[in-house]
Amino acid sequence: MEMSGVGPLTAALRMQNVVQSSSRWAQGQQYRPWTLRSLKLQPLSPVPSDIEISRAQTPKPVDQLAQEIGLLQEETEAYGRTKAKVRLSLLDRLREQPDGKYVLVAGITPTPLGEGKSTVVIGLVQALSAHLKLNSFACLRQPSQGPTFGVKGGAAGGGYAQVIPMEEFNLHLTGDIHAITAANNLVAAAIDARMLHEATQKDKALYSRLVPSVNGVRRFSPIQIARLRRLGISEIDPSALMPQEVSSFVRLDLDPAKVTWQRVVDTNDRFLRKITVGQASTEKGHVRETQFDIAVASEIMAILALADGLGDMKTRLGRMVVGSSRSGQPVTAEDLGVSGALAVLMKDAIKPTLMQTLEGSPVFVHAGPFANIAHGNSSVLADKLALKLVGEDGFVVTEAGFGADIGMEKFFNIKCRASGLRPNVVVLVATVRALKMHGGGPNVSAGSPLPREYIDENLSLVVKGCSSNLRKQIQIAHLFGVPVVVALNVFKTDTQAEIDLVCQMAKESGASDAVPCHHWARGGRGSVELAQAVKQAGSQPSHFQFLYSQETPIVEKIRMIAQKVYGADDIELSPEAQAKIDYYNQQGYGKLPICMAKTHLSLSHLPEKKGTPTGFTLPIRDIRASIGAGFIYPLVGTVMNMSVTILLCVCVPPEV
Amino acid sequence: MEMSGVGPLTAALRMQNVVQSSSRWAQGQQYRPWTLRSLKLQPLSPVPSDIEISRAQTPKPVDQLAQEIGLLQEETEAYGRTKAKVRLSLLDRLREQPDGKYVLVAGITPTPLGEGKSTVVIGLVQALSAHLKLNSFACLRQPSQGPTFGVKGGAAGGGYAQVIPMEEFNLHLTGDIHAITAANNLVAAAIDARMLHEATQKDKALYSRLVPSVNGVRRFSPIQIARLRRLGISEIDPSALMPQEVSSFVRLDLDPAKVTWQRVVDTNDRFLRKITVGQASTEKGHVRETQFDIAVASEIMAILALADGLGDMKTRLGRMVVGSSRSGQPVTAEDLGVSGALAVLMKDAIKPTLMQTLEGSPVFVHAGPFANIAHGNSSVLADKLALKLVGEDGFVVTEAGFGADIGMEKFFNIKCRASGLRPNVVVLVATVRALKMHGGGPNVSAGSPLPREYIDENLSLVVKGCSSNLRKQIQIAHLFGVPVVVALNVFKTDTQAEIDLVCQMAKESGASDAVPCHHWARGGRGSVELAQAVKQAGSQPSHFQFLYSQETPIVEKIRMIAQKVYGADDIELSPEAQAKIDYYNQQGYGKLPICMAKTHLSLSHLPEKKGTPTGFTLPIRDIRASIGAGFIYPLVGTVMNMSVTILLCVCVPPEV
Repeated sequence: MEMSGVGPLTAALRMQNVVQSSSRWAQGQQYRPWTLRSLKLQPLSPVPSDIEISRAQTPKPVDQLAQEIGLLQEETEAYGRTKAKVRLSLLDRLREQPDGKYVLVAGITPTPLGEGKSTVVIGLVQALSAHLKLNSFACLRQPSQGPTFGVKGGAAGGGYAQVIPMEEFNLHLTGDIHAITAANNLVAAAIDARMLHEATQKDKALYSRLVPSVNGVRRFSPIQIARLRRLGISEIDPSALMPQEVSSFVRLDLDPAKVTWQRVVDTNDRFLRKITVGQASTEKGHVRETQFDIAVASEIMAILALADGLGDMKTRLGRMVVGSSRSGQPVTAEDLGVSGALAVLMKDAIKPTLMQTLEGSPVFVHAGPFANIAHGNSSVLADKLALKLVGEDGFVVTEAGFGADIGMEKFFNIKCRASGLRPNVVVLVATVRALKMHGGGPNVSAGSPLPREYIDENLSLVVKGCSSNLRKQIQIAHLFGVPVVVALNVFKTDTQAEIDLVCQMAKESGASDAVPCHHWARGGRGSVELAQAVKQAGSQPSHFQFLYSQETPIVEKIRMIAQKVYGADDIELSPEAQAKIDYYNQQGYGKLPICMAKTHLSLSHLPEKKGTPTGFTLPIRDIRASIGAGFIYPLVGTVMNMSVTILLCVCVPPEV
Repeated sequence: MEMSGVGPLTAALRMQNVVQSSSRWAQGQQYRPWTLRSLKLQPLSPVPSDIEISRAQTPKPVDQLAQEIGLLQEETEAYGRTKAKVRLSLLDRLREQPDGKYVLVAGITPTPLGEGKSTVVIGLVQALSAHLKLNSFACLRQPSQGPTFGVKGGAAGGGYAQVIPMEEFNLHLTGDIHAITAANNLVAAAIDARMLHEATQKDKALYSRLVPSVNGVRRFSPIQIARLRRLGISEIDPSALMPQEVSSFVRLDLDPAKVTWQRVVDTNDRFLRKITVGQASTEKGHVRETQFDIAVASEIMAILALADGLGDMKTRLGRMVVGSSRSGQPVTAEDLGVSGALAVLMKDAIKPTLMQTLEGSPVFVHAGPFANIAHGNSSVLADKLALKLVGEDGFVVTEAGFGADIGMEKFFNIKCRASGLRPNVVVLVATVRALKMHGGGPNVSAGSPLPREYIDENLSLVVKGCSSNLRKQIQIAHLFGVPVVVALNVFKTDTQAEIDLVCQMAKESGASDAVPCHHWARGGRGSVELAQAVKQAGSQPSHFQFLYSQETPIVEKIRMIAQKVYGADDIELSPEAQAKIDYYNQQGYGKLPICMAKTHLSLSHLPEKKGTPTGFTLPIRDIRASIGAGFIYPLVGTVMNMSVTILLCVCVPPEV
């Protein structure tokens, strides 16, 4: 630190800070309950709109919250008054501290309306912290900004279980998705520019462009030296390369037809779903058909969610495969020479963002990879930081996207494998509405009024739903050796008999407990019973195990998921899928875990099959890979684009 | 504020804060010198790289800087440790405080390498604050992230006159450009979606989409009611509109061939310069040729730079014309119903970002509109905040892009007209290199070694350069009644005789003073002479006047700029340009100021004409308008795309 120009008083204050930090550091090694100031809630009836509830509550200053949960001043970076990034150095300071309990909120197969997993997460943490006075943290995904201006609205929870301020959560947050967009599109620009240059320039000109003379000196960068090593070239003096070496160094020889990298935008812009680029005369006819995806579908988002630190993130970014050469070799971001730039663009995004619930409990918002072509879970780093902060007797509650067959399976097999963290409890969210659907109720769709079956008491539909989908999803969690608490997210149309029936049948199906939750209408107070059930389940031993070992061949991994999780008889690989598997094995990608791209509306590949489908063969249409993120994703289903198109949906922004 | 649950101590502390705020408020009304802690500089020779210099200096915590310059705690929002947004409420608190001196840094016609205006701004402020101990502030543009990863590098200044930390300045900053990108692309998505819906749906379906039933109730939003008013419909009950009224309400009837709004990206991605969108089958054949521009070229950036506050920004956003209907009527963002969403996306971007120089002087970074199709100046709001903060005897130094004939002319006629602020001094930056070029020296181009004339002493070229371009640019500033100080940005190859000659001839040409500056090699200490000259010039009376009144007809405004500023004999309008003028007059846009889109490499429209070109007629190829920002921009020159294409340049990212 620059000390010149500092007066004695300032210097003395600095010394004092150092002393305080050291003493706090020592304390930080032991668990202690937080002195968290809860924000009082006085729920109104009828429940006002989400935005009205959010605006009616004044959040604590984020620096106060940070202090309450044991963060040192130098470990946070405020972004305005209600958000702060938390530095990863915290992990070093609390290295010796035991982790808290790790709770995953998953759901039964949902209706298209969603069953409220995010609100359960927030309600549960409000109950644990504000009512049971236990250290607890919610870890959530950052929502895409696209749907915020579409039909669906934001993802800050809802009713009296929300992250506040809602606008801050749903809009730019601390810029992570914007950083991902910038990084993703830098790769895309580099790809097209590189193909153009290679097509129009000779080796020597390309070499001068890639290794320019700066003040008369030409030097390889470390990234370039690494590429030379991969090519088997040990020379490090740019002027000493043989012409053939120069040629193999400068030419990636990317096949335009085999570029797999897409541009992204965080706006629901349907007209970018299929486009042609390069039509200006300056691009000399190098037109190419391509597409924009929604930003959260970028592999960089999946990397952010799985990275263990800055170095790991940079390695993964470099490893991303953007396409293949004409000779069939994978071409990576490292080959393009952009991995350093990507890491710089992402250097702040790697720090989780601290916010708070309506009742003043801490929330990390970090990463939000798509749940179909990626794993749909918030970041490993946020969970790790939170587990240290809550300490041994505390609780970290996080969420897996879609139904448990998808989000939870990926949470266990992909995220926990990457992080080394072990879950203690699964909270399985069910609603009477979804159970009735699985029990044979009529179709539920967004925008149409709910049929009467969903509004009036109908115990027979509930019974059938519980004995099919609910039971199966509980069994899936048990496959992994983790105790399950069923959380029935109560709607005002649910009858007491229906509620009791669900709780009873859930316990009969093996759930450690099953309780109704009223967080939406009552806040944390409405989830106290759930919090107690989770606390109880968390004190039981968990015998977590993966479904498959990384050594299992790709096909077998897919088959195990299909049979054991989805209940399929078998899988059926298309010739394309089989060819890809052969290629991935040959490239050494065979040990990667599997990230199924399947509809979330059924345990099978057919969205209309509710309950517990049986007697089906799961078709694998094609297989793709996110080598940087570190998983292979089979595309399930026969219908083109069914589950894989990153929908840039209809955009009719609401009036604000 | 929510006071329930607050203990007596907290309440007492809050009261104390209120008392302190009030007393500081009273002090804030009077001018007082800041107690600014300067950061010591010990310049090395040879001068290290910009990034090395930036990293070698430890910035003050931004909250300390904020306190030193008289900001109250509640007026700032930290973004990490080295950046903070400043709230606009400051303008209310300091309403009665007289403004400081307003100094504009402009330049002579530059070489393609640039002549260092940004470094002069920063060096001058370092000299004023750290060496003359005068309150002073630099106001800079936020650079586009695109070129940061291209050839040019960042825009944080250079050498020992820089904004630090350099990476923070050049990358995401506080997300303003990302917010602009999101807002711009939301408009674009809304345009294409709207055209598709109008082409494929009947009035009733469109109406249901635009005015949906929420819990059985349909309601017009305030934005929709305003649109109904414009259509002459006074009804406010959605169910009571006549079919014809519904039809005119729901149909903007945008002509796809007349959409002028483009998507933007903050990456130099040349393949997006011309594209075709809408090629997915879901878009039913509604393909359209369009393009991406660089994000800083968005009209929303120009609006951010000119807006006077949140309300003004929202009005301007709503007023943006995105195209015209088949019947030739302009269609605005307000017609699309997105202006509220845009304002929400931009609500944080409107607050300027506080950073600091290498010597700890305050800097506002805010807005960075393109200098060709927009006015190329940083924001009105940052200047206003800074002028209040420095107080009556302080200095605010800002920069106008390109040569004085472009950036300064627009600063005066567009920015000062919008802000009501009046400049006190123009600092005109010259280099021996550029003067030699104007004096007839050989061509200077990026990437090629400088010819000998520019390295060896050559007094005759210097004389010719001074008596042509330098003299003319001084005269242009005098046209507006503002005193000029010439700042000769000294390079190491400049000889003493050359330096003396420039200073002497500048004074003979009417400059109040002319001094050499050595900020690049020496920091603020190297610009003390300039600071003293500026202080002296600032104490002289300034008789500022606009070049034209807003009542002057469009053609006459253009002619006045062409003749008086550029030295043209006359202008020549293409038929397209004349037709546009007629249309704009008919639409009531005739009173807007003019924003010339002309090459910055010559006073004329021909980049190769150096010195003071005469005997030319300025061709106006076409005319466009940014109605939201509030100016009309004629495209100067006969070559298509010469000055107006928003280049998404070659992207070869450097290794970081």
